[in-house]
Amino acid sequence: MKISFESDYNNGAHPEVICHLLETNGKQSQSYGFDEWSEKARDKIRDACKCPNADIFFLVGGTQTNATVIDALLPSYAGVVAATTAHINVHESGAVEASGHKVITLPQEDGKLTADSLSTYLAAFHADPTWEHMVQPGMTYITFPTELGTIYSTSEIKAIYEVCRRYKIPLFIDGARLGYGLAADGCDIDFPWLAHHCDAFYIGGTKVGALCGEAVVFPTGAPRGFFTQVKRHGALLAKSRLAGVQFDALFTDGLYLRISAHAIEMAMQLRDIFREAGFVLRPSPTNQQFVELPNEQMHALMQQILFETWEPIDAHRTLCRFVTSWATTSQDLECMRSALKTLQK
Amino acid sequence: MKISFESDYNNGAHPEVICHLLETNGKQSQSYGFDEWSEKARDKIRDACKCPNADIFFLVGGTQTNATVIDALLPSYAGVVAATTAHINVHESGAVEASGHKVITLPQEDGKLTADSLSTYLAAFHADPTWEHMVQPGMTYITFPTELGTIYSTSEIKAIYEVCRRYKIPLFIDGARLGYGLAADGCDIDFPWLAHHCDAFYIGGTKVGALCGEAVVFPTGAPRGFFTQVKRHGALLAKSRLAGVQFDALFTDGLYLRISAHAIEMAMQLRDIFREAGFVLRPSPTNQQFVELPNEQMHALMQQILFETWEPIDAHRTLCRFVTSWATTSQDLECMRSALKTLQK
Amino acid sequence: MKISFESDYNNGAHPEVICHLLETNGKQSQSYGFDEWSEKARDKIRDACKCPNADIFFLVGGTQTNATVIDALLPSYAGVVAATTAHINVHESGAVEASGHKVITLPQEDGKLTADSLSTYLAAFHADPTWEHMVQPGMTYITFPTELGTIYSTSEIKAIYEVCRRYKIPLFIDGARLGYGLAADGCDIDFPWLAHHCDAFYIGGTKVGALCGEAVVFPTGAPRGFFTQVKRHGALLAKSRLAGVQFDALFTDGLYLRISAHAIEMAMQLRDIFREAGFVLRPSPTNQQFVELPNEQMHALMQQILFETWEPIDAHRTLCRFVTSWATTSQDLECMRSALKTLQK
Amino acid sequence: MKISFESDYNNGAHPEVICHLLETNGKQSQSYGFDEWSEKARDKIRDACKCPNADIFFLVGGTQTNATVIDALLPSYAGVVAATTAHINVHESGAVEASGHKVITLPQEDGKLTADSLSTYLAAFHADPTWEHMVQPGMTYITFPTELGTIYSTSEIKAIYEVCRRYKIPLFIDGARLGYGLAADGCDIDFPWLAHHCDAFYIGGTKVGALCGEAVVFPTGAPRGFFTQVKRHGALLAKSRLAGVQFDALFTDGLYLRISAHAIEMAMQLRDIFREAGFVLRPSPTNQQFVELPNEQMHALMQQILFETWEPIDAHRTLCRFVTSWATTSQDLECMRSALKTLQK
Repeated sequence: MKISFESDYNNGAHPEVICHLLETNGKQSQSYGFDEWSEKARDKIRDACKCPNADIFFLVGGTQTNATVIDALLPSYAGVVAATTAHINVHESGAVEASGHKVITLPQEDGKLTADSLSTYLAAFHADPTWEHMVQPGMTYITFPTELGTIYSTSEIKAIYEVCRRYKIPLFIDGARLGYGLAADGCDIDFPWLAHHCDAFYIGGTKVGALCGEAVVFPTGAPRGFFTQVKRHGALLAKSRLAGVQFDALFTDGLYLRISAHAIEMAMQLRDIFREAGFVLRPSPTNQQFVELPNEQMHALMQQILFETWEPIDAHRTLCRFVTSWATTSQDLECMRSALKTLQK
Repeated sequence: MKISFESDYNNGAHPEVICHLLETNGKQSQSYGFDEWSEKARDKIRDACKCPNADIFFLVGGTQTNATVIDALLPSYAGVVAATTAHINVHESGAVEASGHKVITLPQEDGKLTADSLSTYLAAFHADPTWEHMVQPGMTYITFPTELGTIYSTSEIKAIYEVCRRYKIPLFIDGARLGYGLAADGCDIDFPWLAHHCDAFYIGGTKVGALCGEAVVFPTGAPRGFFTQVKRHGALLAKSRLAGVQFDALFTDGLYLRISAHAIEMAMQLRDIFREAGFVLRPSPTNQQFVELPNEQMHALMQQILFETWEPIDAHRTLCRFVTSWATTSQDLECMRSALKTLQK
Repeated sequence: MKISFESDYNNGAHPEVICHLLETNGKQSQSYGFDEWSEKARDKIRDACKCPNADIFFLVGGTQTNATVIDALLPSYAGVVAATTAHINVHESGAVEASGHKVITLPQEDGKLTADSLSTYLAAFHADPTWEHMVQPGMTYITFPTELGTIYSTSEIKAIYEVCRRYKIPLFIDGARLGYGLAADGCDIDFPWLAHHCDAFYIGGTKVGALCGEAVVFPTGAPRGFFTQVKRHGALLAKSRLAGVQFDALFTDGLYLRISAHAIEMAMQLRDIFREAGFVLRPSPTNQQFVELPNEQMHALMQQILFETWEPIDAHRTLCRFVTSWATTSQDLECMRSALKTLQK
Repeated sequence: MKISFESDYNNGAHPEVICHLLETNGKQSQSYGFDEWSEKARDKIRDACKCPNADIFFLVGGTQTNATVIDALLPSYAGVVAATTAHINVHESGAVEASGHKVITLPQEDGKLTADSLSTYLAAFHADPTWEHMVQPGMTYITFPTELGTIYSTSEIKAIYEVCRRYKIPLFIDGARLGYGLAADGCDIDFPWLAHHCDAFYIGGTKVGALCGEAVVFPTGAPRGFFTQVKRHGALLAKSRLAGVQFDALFTDGLYLRISAHAIEMAMQLRDIFREAGFVLRPSPTNQQFVELPNEQMHALMQQILFETWEPIDAHRTLCRFVTSWATTSQDLECMRSALKTLQK
């Protein structure tokens, strides 16, 4: 079987996660979020975030989480502001629109929304005499790390959050790959800082060692009726232990950040391997690496390694994505090194 | 800890299911439904249903599955016909309405929709000169077994399906607890029969031994764009192996029906225990038993056993629900027997 | 051409209304609700309601108005409580559900919701341990007069409004035929009383002398973003003068109530004509009269008079509806009297 | 009162329209689209379009019409492709998203979508391996004339329509100002040509001489259930005569095109007046003229003439919009000429 760098969701759960599922399996529990592991996991996340009053909900997957949180935070006549490259704008099959909300897009820079463009847009919106005929910007959505593997600095998020507060709209941070951002070289953000610089965020489990599960954190309390919103969006697990047990494991002995740090270590080595072989990579300090491959070499590499093509660069070259995870090993990297060598002969 | 008959979702997974998750965990796989176990599980379900051309999708939970299938089968201006007691009408927080569709309710008999009332309603609808001003009945929804634990006979479903075909609307069967219906004493329905007497149904996993997962079966093919619909409804698992592995286990060596038969055996013994103790039960051949308890005895029993109150019968008595599952043991029943004895002293 | 008692919307506008459209036609104006006639009409309605701070919007038709107001008053996870016979539940093609909200139905008595059944339902809802899994009752909707032509007394609406306030949910009154209720014999409600006993209501224009138009009144202020909601629901007239001019006419010299009183006078005479001819009528003090007609006589009458069949009573009799309006004349009544005589021969 | 060039909806109806409303007012009629004038107007439009089998519906306003037609033409999981400047994307308060559909935007050229960019986008979409995770392009929307006053040529629309047919998605043309496009100098499109080069379009009445009303034309037949969709979107007039009578007038003796031609004549003279006064105009052959005004002169002109600012060009200049209609007179133009002269002093 080929070595795969396709994604961070083509392996099972991290061993400590699957083991916790096994060891707790025989025990009876409450359901719908009231099981003991969900309670424990909530406490551990509150501790990690230094947010003793945070409301925390465990949902199943990322698209679902985005759609549910956005619908809960917006009045029906408002939309969510996001970068054009935002996952909600591109790869969620219109789940946000399905609950009646427009995704209002602003240009991205390295996958990021900027406080400047947000501020300019909001100022122009409110200055426009026809504003009441337009979708009202009701919240801001950013991803951390972004879809392009880049990360925001504290000053960038702070600036965005200040704009949001000035216009009295909440900031929601999609952390489907949150750990890989926090563990990235040069990242000056940690859980407590994040929790104090937005109104809602989620800690992605699916892509960071769990089989499924995303932990939504409302640092200062959930919007009214959120439990019912979760159910209404089909996002409520009857056997909530499935998510609770996994997040209990992920927040025990720092597993979430250990997984993340490992994947980043692997990603940085992978980066070096590509560079040494003479390839150009896009800037990314996280577990997704984007490499420019001449099409011929791309096809040759595909014979040995699984990975995703991202987008054509020109007629001769393609941007390709290579992703690491908890399951990536040094041997995988050696295979990649060897594969690249065969390409160059 | 108290013995619990609260629900069929307050235990972990059946041991064969959790073991399969463990043993497959180390293997890499495709995602979004294309993993090898999802493929195998599909084949096994097609075999079990004698439906070689069925399209099968694995979703996460029941409410989500109902909302997604119903939205996919209906044109936007149509509604779904169901009994007043239907889960979609009562306990899904308006998930069907959230995608713009009305639940058109007809009276229930023992939790069931009848072909007669369906036929009468549809005839009246089409005879009504104002029909174009009303929500058009676009499909029929029934649960098997019902929310009250009862089951339809082949002749009852056949009659309903004939009405549906006469009016050219699809029939969708919610099988959140499907196994417990199929395994019930007196049930003359099996998988192949079911698959040939409706347009869509789902095989509930969450309540029948899995941690999560519902297998949607379209015996003659899925509606157009269904994959995108699943994603749009937040119901697509990135690590689809989670559902695939579990259904692979559930459809290996007849586990799904073994679990179901065990729970039914336990439920029938539970029934006898209540009866011997002099209590009145509502008719139910499945794993949910509804017992009329005088309030004083109900409160006393709650000290020893976990169970749900269903609804008040009058000022002095309450209908209570006791549910069995793969995890119910003979010892649990003995505890119940002893508990009932202490009540009567 | 046959005399018609089919509806109160099969004539043009009342002469004073159409004249005002003509006489103002040459004048330029603002649009989107800011034209001078809309402003004047608002002031006149505020005066009539003794509600100097009311927010008033002019929409086009009834279904649209109901859908817009209900969507604006409800959080997305909540539904609207209404009688089973409510127009929003029966004859609006699912417009309420189209914006994601369930219509929660309670039994009707003479077409009316009762404070008792509302109170019992709300108490049971909040006592139900599964309430968070259900659609939350977010507002109450009643029609005045009802779809069956009956009217609420002040004590009935007061009692309903008290229940609503106890549960902190708004009361919305659909007044598509409001004038015919206010002008009905025995009605103890007037505009100011109504405006002080609900959170929103609308004054129907289409069925009370206008060509189109419904005036939504929020006695203590509109919900946030309502203008944008109106636009989003496709209910904002660019040439808002169309509605403004008509309501300006309707609220000049008491025209709205003059039209209503005339139609009621005609309806009461029609009632007498049917009674004298030996027919049985359902109780209705308003402009819709429901008569039980043997099918043979119904078909004979249809040869001479236009009217609507409402619903079959049994195999031999049909409930038929006869409606009066500003355009009904004494001659029309004489024709009816003659027609009934020919039947009886 | 100031002369107004603010919009084509700040006057009443064209005299022939308002007169027809008056002269038909006394006559009884059917409702909900079945009145005699709606029937006549449909026949006249079918004649004008040389489309004997067209289905035609009269709705009230433009936003409503767009939302209803788009919802009716799309499956729930699909979106509508449009230029970024499209009215549905900018100035309809999210009415399209309110029914669950994304507006997929492509860059505009002079306000127009190009066949090239449409074709490139559709090819890329279908070539993208993640297409099933994205909103599926289910139809194309263009405006004729555009929001910037420009018009498509026959070859441009033909090319777009061919792309649509290649990808089997319908083309819908928003004709809120259709007449002004058809009457524009250099326009090689007429009603029959248009009706044979799209799947749906509407003939705007509100902005072309009526008080309200848009005629939706489906040249080869309406989508299933369209009547119910209209009602569900709150777009069905009970007194449908209001729209029917107006369109009957608009399509009698070529009034629709006479109004349009007059407004175009006025617009071209207005253009000359601005040019002679030394101002720069954007290219527009229709009734909306966009003039670059230095801010100081803009403010001075506002003292004498009503018009709309469109958008800032830079710190010193603003793009301003001047609109003509049936009601614009030669005197109005003379006033403008004088006003401009005073500016230049």
